[in-house]
Parts: sequence; C-alpha cells; structure tokens
Amino acid sequence: MTPATGNSPGKDAADTGILSRAGDLFQLLRDGKARTRAELALSTGLARSTVASRIDALMLSGLVGPAGEAVSSGGRPPSRFAFNPSARVVLAVDVGATHVNVAVTDLGGKVLAEHRLQQEVADGPEAVLDRLVAEGKRLLAAADRSLDELAGIGIGLPGPVEHDTGTPVKPPIMPGWDGFDVVRYVQRSLPVPVLVDNDVNIMALGERTAHWPEHDNFFFVKVATGIGSGIISSGELQRGANGTAGDLGHVRVPRGDDVLCTCGNYGCLEAMASGPAIARQLREQGLDASSGADVRRLVSAGNLQAIQGLRQAGRDIGDVLATVVNLLNPSVIVIGGSIGDSGEHLVAGIREVVYRRSLPLATSHLRIGLSLAGNKAAILGASQMVTQHVLSPAVIEATLQATG
Amino acid sequence: MTPATGNSPGKDAADTGILSRAGDLFQLLRDGKARTRAELALSTGLARSTVASRIDALMLSGLVGPAGEAVSSGGRPPSRFAFNPSARVVLAVDVGATHVNVAVTDLGGKVLAEHRLQQEVADGPEAVLDRLVAEGKRLLAAADRSLDELAGIGIGLPGPVEHDTGTPVKPPIMPGWDGFDVVRYVQRSLPVPVLVDNDVNIMALGERTAHWPEHDNFFFVKVATGIGSGIISSGELQRGANGTAGDLGHVRVPRGDDVLCTCGNYGCLEAMASGPAIARQLREQGLDASSGADVRRLVSAGNLQAIQGLRQAGRDIGDVLATVVNLLNPSVIVIGGSIGDSGEHLVAGIREVVYRRSLPLATSHLRIGLSLAGNKAAILGASQMVTQHVLSPAVIEATLQATG
Repeated sequence: MTPATGNSPGKDAADTGILSRAGDLFQLLRDGKARTRAELALSTGLARSTVASRIDALMLSGLVGPAGEAVSSGGRPPSRFAFNPSARVVLAVDVGATHVNVAVTDLGGKVLAEHRLQQEVADGPEAVLDRLVAEGKRLLAAADRSLDELAGIGIGLPGPVEHDTGTPVKPPIMPGWDGFDVVRYVQRSLPVPVLVDNDVNIMALGERTAHWPEHDNFFFVKVATGIGSGIISSGELQRGANGTAGDLGHVRVPRGDDVLCTCGNYGCLEAMASGPAIARQLREQGLDASSGADVRRLVSAGNLQAIQGLRQAGRDIGDVLATVVNLLNPSVIVIGGSIGDSGEHLVAGIREVVYRRSLPLATSHLRIGLSLAGNKAAILGASQMVTQHVLSPAVIEATLQATG
Repeated sequence: MTPATGNSPGKDAADTGILSRAGDLFQLLRDGKARTRAELALSTGLARSTVASRIDALMLSGLVGPAGEAVSSGGRPPSRFAFNPSARVVLAVDVGATHVNVAVTDLGGKVLAEHRLQQEVADGPEAVLDRLVAEGKRLLAAADRSLDELAGIGIGLPGPVEHDTGTPVKPPIMPGWDGFDVVRYVQRSLPVPVLVDNDVNIMALGERTAHWPEHDNFFFVKVATGIGSGIISSGELQRGANGTAGDLGHVRVPRGDDVLCTCGNYGCLEAMASGPAIARQLREQGLDASSGADVRRLVSAGNLQAIQGLRQAGRDIGDVLATVVNLLNPSVIVIGGSIGDSGEHLVAGIREVVYRRSLPLATSHLRIGLSLAGNKAAILGASQMVTQHVLSPAVIEATLQATG
C-alpha cells in the first residue's frame, strides 16, 4: 500500500476528475458476492479483455480471490471472483484520556487481536504514539500477520482534529498535541496510510456500521467527561468546514444560565450534564462524588439523588437534542460514552424532552436508545475509517499501479 | 426524456450498483470544457470505439455538441466535443403563500423567460398546478422552445415535502395539499420528470449554486412569515430521514418562554422572530403593524422601535444559529426571505449572538451575510434540482437507451 501523507476524503475518484478503472470494478465486488468475468463485463460495459486484466491485477493484490465456479453453459465452467476481506489488516486505535485501546482487524472490521493499555494522553504525542506503534506491532505478530499486510492505521483522539491533515487543533485535555503531525510521526515507524479523527466521530461511524447500516441519518452522542456528537447525514459522516461539527457540549441549555463552563461561556450543556457536572451537583447535595465514575457507582447502588441527577442531565441533553431533531431529522439517536452507557435513566430524561419539544413529523419514526456497540464502537469506527479510504476507487487504483 | 414517477436522490448510479456508461462519460464533459475522443478515451480507460459510440449517442441526444477542432499532430484534425446546456430546458417554479413564480431556464440555470402570477396557495393543488402548467406552456412558447425540449419540472412549495415522492406532508398554510400527488398530477399534462421540495431547500440550493459553489458546508435561513432553513453539508442538500431537516422555526429560544406558537409549544423561534411576530411586538408598543410588510415599511422609514425589533429578532435567530454553528460548522450562513432581505439590522443581531456564543474554532472562518440571489434564489434552486437529477449518470443512461 502507498503511504498517504494525510487523510483524504472519500470522494477521491470524483476529485481527480478521472473515472478510475480497476478501482471501480472493485467497488462492484465489495458487496462480497461472487461474479464471473462475463458478469462483470456485462454490468460495467467494459471489454472482456479489460475486465480480465483488471481482475488479474486485483487477484495479484490479494483483494480479490477465486470464489468457485459458475454453472457452465457448455465447455469449461467460468471462474468466479469475490472480495477477500482477510487480504489485509488494519490497526484500529482508540485513544482516551487515560487509556489506549489497540486492535488488529481485517478489512471487514472483524477484530483479530486487541489490547487495552493504561496510558495518559497528557503524557504527550510522542509517548502515546510510540506505545501505540509498539503495541500495534506486537498485536500484528500475535495475530500472525506481517507488516506487509497492514493496509492502514485509524486513530481516534479525545479532542478536535482537522481530519484532512490528521492534526489535533487546540484539544483541551491533550497538552502537547496541538498542531502535532500525528500522521507523519506514526508513518516514520509504520509507512502506511494513517487516518485520524476525533473519538466521537469514529464512535458514530462504528456504531452505525455495526448496528444501523440501513439508517442514513444517524446521530451519536457521547456523554462522559465531556459531551460530543457524531453526525451521519445522507450516509456520510459530517465534519463541517473546519472539522468541528458535532460540538454539542458547548450549546447553551436554559437551566444552566448561571453556571460557568471551562470554555468561558455560561450555561453550556457540558457544564450541566457531563459526568463531572453531575458529580458536582451531587456534591452540592452532600454526596461523596467527584467524577463520572462516582456517579455511575451511586446510580448502580440505587441512590435516588444520583438517579434523579442522571435523569435531569438527560433532560438537559434532550433539550439540545430536540433542536438536533428539528434541524437534522435523524431516524436514530444513540447515546454512548461512560455516562451514556450507565443505563436507561439518562435516556429516559432525553426521550421525555425530545418527544415533548420536537415536531411530530420528525419524531414519528425516531428511535432513541443506548449504544449497542458500547466500548467496541471506537475500534470498529477506526477500522471502518481506514477501509473506507483504502478501498475507495482512487486508492485501489493507485495501489495497483504502484504494485503492478 | 423518460418521465420519472417521483423524485430520485442524486445517487442513482450507486444505487443501481451498475457503473453506467455514456452517463459517466457525460459527467466528464459537464464542466463545459471541450475534449477530443482520444482525450476522453485516455481519461476513462475506455476503448476508442466505445468512446466513439457513446459520443454518437450523446450527440444524437443533443446534450453534447461539436466544439471545434483540436490541433492536429498530422492528418485530419480531431473533433472536440462539449456539453451543450441549451439542448434542453427546465420549468422552474416557486410557489409561495400568495404567488407562483414560473421560469424557463436552460440546463445551465440561465433564465430564458419568467413570469410571476398572483395566486393563493390556499386555493388548493388543482387550481395552483393547473395555472402553473398553463403558464409554463405559455412561457415555453414565448421562449420559442417546444415541449419535446423540456427536460423536467422543479417545484418549490411553502411547506414540508416528502422529497422521494414529491408529496406535501401536513403543510400548515396549504389546505387541501396534504398527501396530494403533485408529481402525477403535473405529469398528466407534462409527461417529464417532476421534482418537488420545500421552498427553503431550493432557495439554499439556488443561493449556493449561484454564489457559493466552493462552500460545501452552507446554511441558508429564510426569515419571512415563517422561519426555516436549508442545510448543505459535504456539498449535498440534507433532507433528513423524513424530509423535515432544517426546521428552525420551532426550536425554542430563551426569551420566548411565555409566548405560545401556532405549533402548540411555547417559545418557538418563529413565534418570536418571524415577520408577524415582530409586527405583534411592535403593535404591543402602540405601532401600526400587522404583518412583515409593515415591519419592512417601518424599518425603511427609519422607525427606531422597528429597527430595534428587527435587531432583537436577529439576536433570537442568532441564539439558534449559535447551536447550528457548533453542530454543523458551516463556512457560510446566508439570511434570505422577505424579512431577511430587509437589511443589515437583522444580520447585525445574528452576528452579535453567534460570535459571542459559538466556539472560536467554528467561527474563525465563518461568514454571515444577506442573500445575494435574493428573490431569484428559489427559481435558480428549482432549476438546479432538476438538472442534478436529469443530468445524473443513471438518468442520462436511461434516456439514451430509451431514445437510441
């Protein structure tokens, strides 16, 4: 695989203005169905000889493999070909505030090996990325796969990322990372395409790919130490003009008018409904709570004040989500993150407000629920981000030209 | 052209799973640049003979025409071909509460003839659509174009529309239109593809196509009798799961807690900042104002209370747009509609709040301004909606197969 110098959007083929060749043929095969050369010629309009040479190139790359024989209409039965997702592997990495989760997956998102490291993101990019690379190499070996088989690396970071360059931009909890060239640093050790995005975007991608693939208008909310969201509209992850789309945490909520947020504004959602914010409100009621983990502990112990606090946080989040529903009209809203995963009380508060405040037309088919991928969402999404890129027509084409 | 039975999304080629043929070749030519057969063969990888037969089909349809000769490298100079936007025409229609604007445009969006009718949308679909069809035929004749040259009809309606079927869904100011099959009714008179959307979506499309084509994350707000928005993210108009995306008017604003909206909720933006809402507030101050038109009249006469009212409406809209900016991270927000067009006071109020409330990262390159297309936005957008559809690879392909 040719190393990318940064992330590229999915529309490579259209951007180059060229209709790519074997890359386009490969897109037909990506659904996993087996086809003969004749079937491929028929559905693309390409000459038999052209199809044959492109299939040869794809076979050589390993991305396409033989898939048995079709029924013959007389003579030697024609061979069939299909996408082979185990041809390459991906390193999928989820960097959190205090952990780094590293996994090896195949091109279909199947996890082949996985390990969770204790690691402070505040130790800075070199320390975190060095450990991530070392662990990735170890897991590749454990999965019995070589570096040659590595198609790319996907990394989720807990802060804003300029997706086109893979660079963190003023991330509040990541000292030393602002403007750091993550892609180039990782490629010095592992010369493959490296794609970086913020953790909530990859969680949205992972949750949707694994559990809601038929929903093209999908909204993922992470409720943890911070609050953020990942937006999928018309089937595409939406990052906005500067990559900051989905910043739900600093939307103002009515209840919070006199609460100062870390961003300098008053009444931000994050200052009212994040894990630390709920803990602060419980402390003000005399409870022993200093973090989101304490809130979860109190809730699972059945503490009524904590349950009420969680439900009220749900109402505050619901207040903002009512606007999201009117604005984006998603068919599914999924709540994840460490607080989001802590049960139905938060979701109950969210539903209460969304169904009261949003227009009936937009909520008639709306589903609101907890994450199904749970703590796998980020790894699945990081893997998916890489396969979307390396299996796109233009990149396939470039790869075949480089190796052919 | 083959009549469509309803609207189709832009992804026809991908949806059919087939790489289309002459349709794809046409996409290359759509940029207007002239190319030779050899150049087209080179950039598509298609055989010379294949390119030649597809160019023949496109020439026969008139969509592609001769565009002079290239420089010869010896022998007869090769012919060049280019997209011919005047090959077909489009009927672009903007239906408002009390008017119907009908235009004939070419495939490049150039207006060839246009007329504005006084017509109440409340007279019901048959009355409005019959007049629209009659006026469309008259304008076609006036522009010296035949019905055979009509590629399609684009209609914007002042209410929610299910875009896939072109059906109005519970439109509040359109009695008799709920669930009416606009597409089939119009096609009984004019058997061409008919595409229907709500007026704000087509205004967004028109404004962006005409003035901000390089901005892929674009947000259009219409402020008039109602308040709505059109969202373009990643270069695509976003309609949401049920076609209700962009419903800004019923988002709650802090100042409006005790004001009842027509939707039954309290504190909706539309109940605070629409033309009638500003007029109501001015009446409460003893001024003679019963509509948005009165507000505009008072503002242009320099009435200070009216100017303050407009500015406060801008602040209320800005309160919701601050959330939009955090959520969608657009690079351009355009304010249009009859109140939006009435000057800088509204925009000043919007800017004041958006720049105070939104995160610096999202506003550093954000532009907020008045509509440049003005009252042309809807016609331009209706035309663009049709050309996006009829010039898509799959539809071009189907057309050529039907006529060839």
